[in-house]
Amino acid sequence: MRKISSLLAGAAALLLPTAAMAGTHDPMALQIKALQDDVAYEIIEGLTTEVGPRQAGTGQEARARDWSVKKLKSLGFQNVRSEPFMMPTWVRGAETATVVAPYPQKLFVTALGNSASTGGEGITAEVAYFDSLDALKAVPDGSLSGKIAFVTHNMHRAQDGSGYSAFGPIRWFGPSIASQKGAAAYVIKSIGTDYHRNPHTGSTGFGEGIQPIPAGALSLPDADNLERMIKLAQKSGKPVSMKLVLTPQNLGQQESGNVIAEVVGRDPKLPMILIACHLDSWDLATGAFDDAAGCGIIAAAAKNIKDHGQPLRTIRLLWAGAEEVGIWGGKAYRDAYRDQPHAIAMESDFGADNVWRVEFALPEAAKAVSDRIAASLLNLGIGRSAGQAGGGADIGPIIADGNLAIIDLQQDGTRYFDLHHTPDDTLDKIDPAQLRQNVAAWTTVLSIIANSDADFTMPVKQ
Amino acid sequence: MRKISSLLAGAAALLLPTAAMAGTHDPMALQIKALQDDVAYEIIEGLTTEVGPRQAGTGQEARARDWSVKKLKSLGFQNVRSEPFMMPTWVRGAETATVVAPYPQKLFVTALGNSASTGGEGITAEVAYFDSLDALKAVPDGSLSGKIAFVTHNMHRAQDGSGYSAFGPIRWFGPSIASQKGAAAYVIKSIGTDYHRNPHTGSTGFGEGIQPIPAGALSLPDADNLERMIKLAQKSGKPVSMKLVLTPQNLGQQESGNVIAEVVGRDPKLPMILIACHLDSWDLATGAFDDAAGCGIIAAAAKNIKDHGQPLRTIRLLWAGAEEVGIWGGKAYRDAYRDQPHAIAMESDFGADNVWRVEFALPEAAKAVSDRIAASLLNLGIGRSAGQAGGGADIGPIIADGNLAIIDLQQDGTRYFDLHHTPDDTLDKIDPAQLRQNVAAWTTVLSIIANSDADFTMPVKQ
Repeated sequence: MRKISSLLAGAAALLLPTAAMAGTHDPMALQIKALQDDVAYEIIEGLTTEVGPRQAGTGQEARARDWSVKKLKSLGFQNVRSEPFMMPTWVRGAETATVVAPYPQKLFVTALGNSASTGGEGITAEVAYFDSLDALKAVPDGSLSGKIAFVTHNMHRAQDGSGYSAFGPIRWFGPSIASQKGAAAYVIKSIGTDYHRNPHTGSTGFGEGIQPIPAGALSLPDADNLERMIKLAQKSGKPVSMKLVLTPQNLGQQESGNVIAEVVGRDPKLPMILIACHLDSWDLATGAFDDAAGCGIIAAAAKNIKDHGQPLRTIRLLWAGAEEVGIWGGKAYRDAYRDQPHAIAMESDFGADNVWRVEFALPEAAKAVSDRIAASLLNLGIGRSAGQAGGGADIGPIIADGNLAIIDLQQDGTRYFDLHHTPDDTLDKIDPAQLRQNVAAWTTVLSIIANSDADFTMPVKQ
Repeated sequence: MRKISSLLAGAAALLLPTAAMAGTHDPMALQIKALQDDVAYEIIEGLTTEVGPRQAGTGQEARARDWSVKKLKSLGFQNVRSEPFMMPTWVRGAETATVVAPYPQKLFVTALGNSASTGGEGITAEVAYFDSLDALKAVPDGSLSGKIAFVTHNMHRAQDGSGYSAFGPIRWFGPSIASQKGAAAYVIKSIGTDYHRNPHTGSTGFGEGIQPIPAGALSLPDADNLERMIKLAQKSGKPVSMKLVLTPQNLGQQESGNVIAEVVGRDPKLPMILIACHLDSWDLATGAFDDAAGCGIIAAAAKNIKDHGQPLRTIRLLWAGAEEVGIWGGKAYRDAYRDQPHAIAMESDFGADNVWRVEFALPEAAKAVSDRIAASLLNLGIGRSAGQAGGGADIGPIIADGNLAIIDLQQDGTRYFDLHHTPDDTLDKIDPAQLRQNVAAWTTVLSIIANSDADFTMPVKQ
């Protein structure tokens, strides 16, 4: 037997690339190969077609975990497992919005995550219009009693997605503020940049001691139409009244879970590389951009490393559960693995369009590594940002806990908020060429950091 | 008094353009002025904001007629009136489509006009897939018993909208064919070219003696997803089953109506110029492109003529009711006015993007008129087509009845079927610059034909 296996090993040595045998990786050769990748697309296609929407805490998300475990095993990853946890679950009900007077017509609305219910009969009330969150904040407590508060905005497309930080607070904090002012309900112009009749959902929350109220998002064309009606009605001193029906429910604690897979390194004592995406999606779409794409990208890149020899460090994949509704998967991961050493954390959760910029949060001692990465990414059209990497939602808890080093491969967000949290986030939005550029960028970075013995320990924060 | 009025007339002669006093119009001067037009946009904004969706036979369409009569009077048109008629009315109910197995997920669907109801419990059945209408036609009668027939297509964007003629039969005739084959229900990939989760509605019909069945359109992303599921399931020999709920209702005969307005000509005995659009829209959107735009364009152009002096011929505006559901307004117009002499009929019902081509169906005797029009439109980037003008839906009946001459100002249809019959047909889709180019083209043509004493009588058809 020994003879035969020696023979086979000899034959394999001839057939396989040298790098595979040596357990080292040529970043530029792998980068070129990754530009032919089909694995990322297969994962996105599978999740969106065979599973579909994957809302956290539902049976659809559980089906996604089963699918993912099977898929990651079939791709040859090690230690593939599903790690369940419990989390509070809110689900959508009926949702309609109708202008009752003076210009009766139906508007397209969707409930924000954690919205209260109007009850089946709905709430019919005068609309109180605000052109900014500051304008809402400025009115006295109690002044919106019995009214539906409506806040608009002026968000524009931006490559770095910065409009979301600027206008996101309208969704995140607006419902609490409106409740404190006495509003019966709250509607917003969707936090997005497209002009389709698809409202953008997303989580909101109510602060301690604040009464939850029904809260919904109108599609952008509908919000603009409502704004025109209000301005026109104001001229004749008429109020605009709306009937809002939102009947979501809280289901209490339900099961979600993380899916984990590994490429075990040659030196398991060296701190590992953590790469993450999230497996859950909102219920309105199949979550191709948000975030089947991220799971496809990181898995395809890690597979490229694995298939060309064992890396020095372990690469761990975290396909997190329940990101959209409170980063429950990221917190569960932190709680489970805070005692294991992590070197660097990375996340892909901003669609599937080209990576345009790389950003680092690495210690000074690893400067040679970041310089090598930046130089290796130029081929892919990726520049180096002067800013500091911030990581992503799912790796946020473990980064904060362990003060981890971070590398961000930042994707072009120009059209991200056209699709974000809408029914339009479907497979057809994936551009295979841009997806492959992502896989190539990730493959390049992983091939460098997973084979580096540099010390990535971050200086203690002041 | 005579002295004073003579004085005023003298002053007016100094202030007003000569053309206005003479009752003639300079096409090129009016064309340039029309490129500043705001009237068309105001009409579209008013109809979409103050009225909204205007489905034929409903109270919303009646509100649109009231709004239109008021608006056309305020613009200074003569003989403005609403002319009611009765027509059969079908209205949408609940509509959901859910893949039950093997890949459970919700799809976005809308009922086709005249669809039968599934009843509230819906129909759950195996999906029988066809990649073309011919493939559906090819199966034996009775072979689809108890199944949901599903037909896809491969429609692409085209400037002349020709994909609609090519693939429209899937909507127009497919339900009847599926019924004859025994299908329990019928779903199609929406007849459209966009990739948003907005299905395209539109009328269908069932031939004499054919049992109406429930018939719906899936959004294009959903249809493609279903197609992927079917192809994947076929590999393992599994059927795909779907639950379809469509609960539309027939309300019987309801009131619709045409709105008519005129610019009375100096010689009322000369056959008039008829210009048309339709006032009704589908219920899913506010009908900006289809067809508030057409009403805005023709009214703005006719106003430009009126404001610069009385034309030789009468220009009559027909804002037709109930076009979408069977051209009832066009038929009512024919029945009411077939005895009045019409010279030329024109219609605007293809959105609000640039006119790119002019097409004529004029008698040989009027060659000088068509040559002058073609030359005058070159400034606006409009070429002359070698084809024969065909008119539009609303003027179809009176053209057929009276063998009328026709001029078509053909609009760029590249994005028309992205929006057609979807919830996305809203005000924001109107490009004001392209809308003005339409008004300028119409103003140019009207200034020539309404002041021409040419004989537009068409040769008798063989």
